Amino acid sequence: MTSPRYTDLAENLPATVPFVGPETKERVLGRSFSARLGANESVFGPSPKAVEAMARAASETWMYADPESHDLKLALAAHHGVRAECIIIGEGIDGLLGTLVRLPVGAGDPVVTSLGAYPTFNYHVAGFGVAPHTVPYRTDMQDPEALMARAAEVDSRLVYLCNPDNPMGSAHPASVIETAIAALPEGATLCVDEAYADTAPRGTLPALNTAHPRVIRMRTFSKAYDMAGARVGYGITHADLAQAFNKVRNHFGAARISHAGALAALQDQDYLAQTVAKIAEGRERIICLAEDRGLSALPSATNFVTIDMGADVTRAKAMVTALAHQGVFVRMPFVPPQNRCIRVSVGDAAALDHLERVWDAAYRETSAAK
Amino acid sequence: MTSPRYTDLAENLPATVPFVGPETKERVLGRSFSARLGANESVFGPSPKAVEAMARAASETWMYADPESHDLKLALAAHHGVRAECIIIGEGIDGLLGTLVRLPVGAGDPVVTSLGAYPTFNYHVAGFGVAPHTVPYRTDMQDPEALMARAAEVDSRLVYLCNPDNPMGSAHPASVIETAIAALPEGATLCVDEAYADTAPRGTLPALNTAHPRVIRMRTFSKAYDMAGARVGYGITHADLAQAFNKVRNHFGAARISHAGALAALQDQDYLAQTVAKIAEGRERIICLAEDRGLSALPSATNFVTIDMGADVTRAKAMVTALAHQGVFVRMPFVPPQNRCIRVSVGDAAALDHLERVWDAAYRETSAAK
Repeated sequence: MTSPRYTDLAENLPATVPFVGPETKERVLGRSFSARLGANESVFGPSPKAVEAMARAASETWMYADPESHDLKLALAAHHGVRAECIIIGEGIDGLLGTLVRLPVGAGDPVVTSLGAYPTFNYHVAGFGVAPHTVPYRTDMQDPEALMARAAEVDSRLVYLCNPDNPMGSAHPASVIETAIAALPEGATLCVDEAYADTAPRGTLPALNTAHPRVIRMRTFSKAYDMAGARVGYGITHADLAQAFNKVRNHFGAARISHAGALAALQDQDYLAQTVAKIAEGRERIICLAEDRGLSALPSATNFVTIDMGADVTRAKAMVTALAHQGVFVRMPFVPPQNRCIRVSVGDAAALDHLERVWDAAYRETSAAK
Repeated sequence: MTSPRYTDLAENLPATVPFVGPETKERVLGRSFSARLGANESVFGPSPKAVEAMARAASETWMYADPESHDLKLALAAHHGVRAECIIIGEGIDGLLGTLVRLPVGAGDPVVTSLGAYPTFNYHVAGFGVAPHTVPYRTDMQDPEALMARAAEVDSRLVYLCNPDNPMGSAHPASVIETAIAALPEGATLCVDEAYADTAPRGTLPALNTAHPRVIRMRTFSKAYDMAGARVGYGITHADLAQAFNKVRNHFGAARISHAGALAALQDQDYLAQTVAKIAEGRERIICLAEDRGLSALPSATNFVTIDMGADVTRAKAMVTALAHQGVFVRMPFVPPQNRCIRVSVGDAAALDHLERVWDAAYRETSAAK
């Protein structure tokens, strides 16, 4: 019997995953990680109020979630001072990116991103038949001016900009992003991925402006709110663009418990502030660890620290592997010159103690590997 | 400033939802439903073991779920006696349908379903630029033979068949489905939506056969397992087709808590059996309620009962509205001749007591509406 007839596009796509999960690595290694510091999860955990709300909601799992996410939207609208109509909620920013891409991008339509920026965006773009145009990083930061110039040059339909940036941890001040938005070519929609908004220094985030019809800002409960496993992300944008998601999204895709948790987490801003403080402390500790050993750590506006391994991809790769053998899960950027670095998510004291204990032995292995 | 440049397809799609949620109706009505009997949720709730597992997993929400859903896949594989490679897990069957459609179907590619079958399938097909060919129901059942004949006639890429059927509750015996599979034209992939597998009478489900490269059977934790809000569905199919989902799916789309709950629910088959018995009881009660009033209820292999209102769409629509005003949420099929019916999900004793109390008053209103 013959195989399914796939579309030409589906036929030619690889079966791939932008990030291999730590569980897969653990299965390959045959051991559990002692320090899970690779997926930019925040080990501190969600607000106890969110945990309580989720536990309470568990018995209500027989009901579908409200497909309009009405209550969470209203709460987010109040929190951000925008209208609820300007918010679209999805299964994490990853889920929202997949839906967003689909609206303006068909096979052959130009898309612009940075070379080495968030690969899940590229994954979704590829899924609709496009290899994005890329603009190189400049001194380990995305280059918003060059992104806009390239967007104009190729008549781009969609531009992706992550601020603060993953995988480098860098952040542009709001003014730079505002200048980029002002330079956004007609005909291009801009996605500003602000997954790390909550850990960014004051002055990083432009004021929200839902009057612009072609800018969407994406936020998440996965990072500073410490609810990566809940899969709740949202976009803030013009009401028309928010409404356009309703044309293709999986309306009943939300887990009811997750929304209960997100609502409670949002209402516990004190806990968020505490977590952000802990993340800042942990960042400092990772930076010291690197600098004490003569390595430079990049300034970070996120919940991770990117460490320059002082050589090329070989050393960085060897360090990721060596740390894995020492029970530490970390990741690294995918393309040069960023892939001279490794990316260490902030952990709690126990995880960072473990990292510190095993670092030198792991590092020695990388010298042997050279 | 101009709007985003959407694809022609996105530009012309309506912003729609296949099903308006009960919460939206409640907001419009300005009151809560006392009996939530419209979304084929099972009010009995998940296994206490699943509730406990979800509550326990709440504090682990800081971690992403395993993108390979390894543990749940293994458990499902053992449960069904298939290889784990033949299972694909998604955010409910709704989510899986969206991904499945995308693999063989591009603009203009022929798709076949039944006229009035599950509208979310049509929604996803429309999202990829196709209006499906439809085959009428025959005596309130889908017509598998006609579906296959039409698939051959139009050279269909994808065929949808729901067994047991939603919205009519009817079921074909396994032999009819097996005959349909044998008649599946080369070049067509068949999706058998078995969301209601667990409530179907013995002999409804063909043996699983993952050797066929173009048949996928879909199952869910949303119905008899009573976890609609968790969003865990899965497909059982040839390993190659299961693997093809990895080309485009949202790998990190699963809620970690939901998978913990599904795993525990799967391991509590005794509870599932109890729920199935309660569903059967509730079905009987709804059937009696209808028949006592001179209405005919269709035989049901599902967790709902479809009641023939004895007239046309006007009476059925009026009854849905009248029941809503009496605090009861029910739905009805969308197209004739099925839309002479209303569809009542099985509730617990309290919900069915409420339904019984208000039925006659609601029914009187529908006579006035004529």
